[in-house]
Amino acid sequence: MDIKEFIRTIPDYPKPGIMFRDITTLLGSDKGFRAAIDGLVALHEGAHFNAVAGIEARGFILGGAVAHQLGLGFVPVRKKGKLPHEVISEEYALEYGTDCVEIHKDAVHAGDRILLIDDLIATGGTAAAAVKLIGRAGANVTGASFVIELPELGGRQVLEAMDIEVLSLCSYDGH
Amino acid sequence: MDIKEFIRTIPDYPKPGIMFRDITTLLGSDKGFRAAIDGLVALHEGAHFNAVAGIEARGFILGGAVAHQLGLGFVPVRKKGKLPHEVISEEYALEYGTDCVEIHKDAVHAGDRILLIDDLIATGGTAAAAVKLIGRAGANVTGASFVIELPELGGRQVLEAMDIEVLSLCSYDGH
Repeated sequence: MDIKEFIRTIPDYPKPGIMFRDITTLLGSDKGFRAAIDGLVALHEGAHFNAVAGIEARGFILGGAVAHQLGLGFVPVRKKGKLPHEVISEEYALEYGTDCVEIHKDAVHAGDRILLIDDLIATGGTAAAAVKLIGRAGANVTGASFVIELPELGGRQVLEAMDIEVLSLCSYDGH
Repeated sequence: MDIKEFIRTIPDYPKPGIMFRDITTLLGSDKGFRAAIDGLVALHEGAHFNAVAGIEARGFILGGAVAHQLGLGFVPVRKKGKLPHEVISEEYALEYGTDCVEIHKDAVHAGDRILLIDDLIATGGTAAAAVKLIGRAGANVTGASFVIELPELGGRQVLEAMDIEVLSLCSYDGH
């Protein structure tokens, strides 16, 4: 099954020149969603993880299902100001300005091996911030899985330089 | 297993007098997360659904896992301005002011029976807005499941008046 059949491309969103890859059509299809989750689970078959982390918000949908399928707990990597207990924060650069992700200080156990899940890897900025956060909390992201990869934007190289196995279900040329 | 053992209570968050029920400790535990998802799946055993809808953002974590376990597609009910294609919007009242949820116009099929998932039901305002949205898109929410219910705030009665079977894994007195 070609997962791309379920992904909708929206030209010029959110701004001219961007081909937005919309996964809501993938999520909304029983066949597509099953293929995506089972595919993500299979990517790292044989690797050992203690928990799954997902990046808000689309990474929550995918990561929650992957964690349950693997019988593991789920760690939400959230946007600033959303978590109720003591947090650690990591800023990262955007095209203009910065953004920030947070986890609870006690979200992971020391030495845990974490599988990071998101829908798409582009420059890898958000994923790298999530990896640093989890590292500061005492655990290690050892694998990262994405439904979509945009290879020209170099996110894979950013994460691989942090000793992370990076795998994806499909890729698109261009931005 | 008592699911409440995994839920952390944070007093006076986000404001004095509120006992915030923090489910990140439930999600982060492999035993807790499995009990929550398998519990949510079991609540409506025997009922027929065509898809699962989850409310951003904690409902994404739970709803994605429930949808995958049931072999169904997942419909994200998102905050305003997050969806890339043509949307329908529904405003709802907060204590002060209003908020808004959105789905894609083509997110559901006519006549679909939808299971709505969120972490917590309080007044039922957000859930009722999600039910109206899905109704306007041509489908029907026929069941709703929550990890936590705050019965004194009356959300169950709001949804039951809309002909929805409402079930939850645990409840807390007070607000």
